[in-house]
Amino acid sequence: MVQTLADIGEFGLIQRINKLLGRAGIQSRGLTLGVGDDCASFQPKVGVEILVTCDCMIEGRHYLKDYMTPVDIGRRAMVMNISDIGAMGGYPLYALVSLGLREDTPVKDIDDIYQGFIEELRPFQASLIGGNVTRSEDSNFIDITLIGEAEKDAILRRSTARIGDAVLVTGYPGQAAAGLRLLLDRDKDRYLEAHPLISAYTRPTHKAREGRAIATSGLASSMIDISDGLIGDLGHICEESGVGAEIVREKLPVSEHMSGIDLESGDLYDMVLNDSDDYELIITCPSENIEMIRSVVTEINNVRVSEIGSVTEASEGLKIVLPDGSRRNLTSHGWDHFKK
Amino acid sequence: MVQTLADIGEFGLIQRINKLLGRAGIQSRGLTLGVGDDCASFQPKVGVEILVTCDCMIEGRHYLKDYMTPVDIGRRAMVMNISDIGAMGGYPLYALVSLGLREDTPVKDIDDIYQGFIEELRPFQASLIGGNVTRSEDSNFIDITLIGEAEKDAILRRSTARIGDAVLVTGYPGQAAAGLRLLLDRDKDRYLEAHPLISAYTRPTHKAREGRAIATSGLASSMIDISDGLIGDLGHICEESGVGAEIVREKLPVSEHMSGIDLESGDLYDMVLNDSDDYELIITCPSENIEMIRSVVTEINNVRVSEIGSVTEASEGLKIVLPDGSRRNLTSHGWDHFKK
Repeated sequence: MVQTLADIGEFGLIQRINKLLGRAGIQSRGLTLGVGDDCASFQPKVGVEILVTCDCMIEGRHYLKDYMTPVDIGRRAMVMNISDIGAMGGYPLYALVSLGLREDTPVKDIDDIYQGFIEELRPFQASLIGGNVTRSEDSNFIDITLIGEAEKDAILRRSTARIGDAVLVTGYPGQAAAGLRLLLDRDKDRYLEAHPLISAYTRPTHKAREGRAIATSGLASSMIDISDGLIGDLGHICEESGVGAEIVREKLPVSEHMSGIDLESGDLYDMVLNDSDDYELIITCPSENIEMIRSVVTEINNVRVSEIGSVTEASEGLKIVLPDGSRRNLTSHGWDHFKK
Repeated sequence: MVQTLADIGEFGLIQRINKLLGRAGIQSRGLTLGVGDDCASFQPKVGVEILVTCDCMIEGRHYLKDYMTPVDIGRRAMVMNISDIGAMGGYPLYALVSLGLREDTPVKDIDDIYQGFIEELRPFQASLIGGNVTRSEDSNFIDITLIGEAEKDAILRRSTARIGDAVLVTGYPGQAAAGLRLLLDRDKDRYLEAHPLISAYTRPTHKAREGRAIATSGLASSMIDISDGLIGDLGHICEESGVGAEIVREKLPVSEHMSGIDLESGDLYDMVLNDSDDYELIITCPSENIEMIRSVVTEINNVRVSEIGSVTEASEGLKIVLPDGSRRNLTSHGWDHFKK
């Protein structure tokens, strides 16, 4: 019989998690008190700023438990938070996790979810320092607060794009959305399970190291990670910076994996532009810095950096240039969780 | 027609919250970037340690929406986190809030919940610096991460109680549990709505200022706030400190409000000892410091500090001394969210 949370109880689970953290967890620099008291505590490095972000993943809404392993669910929840820290130029150090769990959740699955957290934190020598567990009647959820540090001069915001800057993007936005579509269709084509697009959805990678390198280089004017889709997050840059942007459809990066799936050309670009949890970066910079930014990124990882357009006056809004030279308005929208 | 989240959407809600924070929120000391980017950032005071805690409240499980106003729900969620920071000797500065909301939640209720957060943060000049909103299919939930600061020497843990110390408790634990019982019975006695015990449940107050004063005084050996009940949290002190404790039933503080309700005497003490979200403090200290700790607390607030027992050897476990002089084992249990 599968052991569930109902069998071991909340305090049993907490003890189990603490043991797991003791075995596999890491003691981050500066940590003075980890799990086990009313609060955790740490001593920040002198002169740095503290960065904090939190993001919540709800089963059925942000992830599909039947299509992802518990390890991947844990990794993905942590990746989305690490991505936020990296997109500001910081490095993650301390994570707090709130879990809402149905009592029929297998204990083994929870171990695996924590394993996923730890796997993503380990490369940064970052650690889990606190959290709580509560019973959920319905969907499981994972809410993570991630704390990092950055030197004051290294912090790069989304609100500082300048008119005339180039707009760059890392990797291939839209691959996660394409992977999700394949995954939902997989009963038809089971051989697709190992497809790279499906991995892009189930095991996304952040570009936090690349983000930090770009931010500390001083070459970029603004940066954001993609979690609301390319249009959605470019829209956030425009709104917060008080600018517009124009992107050129033919310059949008389309991976060979995406070209290979059976989609109309229009659908393909829609997928590149719209809701997709890719955790790539959008960067703006003076055009003379593009090649240097490419070098900075390449030193870390062999990630493509595509120039896809430019920053314009706010009055121009968000536009796309089609192959025939015509310009169309792009609606800046992301993944809106409530709107009818 | 009542406007709900489905009408204004996620981004509409975020804009609304940001406006509310702009109007009523506070810019805390050290804050360098608030709501609106991938992360918030702050510059810690030199030499302090950062304290972090997170706690989650789920509708139907941790609060009953039909018995509490949205403002009180927001206050209570923040109070439980402020209490954790104070119980370690710190002061709260920055809060991040994750909300899981059904799409039929009235927008007015969300405004009120935020109002509750702000009312509790304002006395500390603490502010909301980030968070996220996601759609919940079922119960609403509020998950708060609260960040504070404390001088290194001021931090007081639960793991440092010493054998022979006195055990003190502030206020009247059990009042919130008694209030909840009255509340659930109120169809029978509607006049009870304004009863002080019901306020103890719906509008609990933290003892964070008292906790910080006790911690900085250096007079106490350990401290914890009560969120798992008096036995549960005294049990946490025992476990983490490697000690036992003996409490004397006749020394347990019973408020006149509690004496006034219709309970058997045994039930009354059960209520004082067991699960109750009172956010009072349990303190251990050398017995010669008791009066000085009382003075430290009284300078802040007219709160009763009761000596209820003493710290013993670990092998003695957790015991209660009854009026006839007999000793009984107390099971250290709290509010276990999963156990069958």
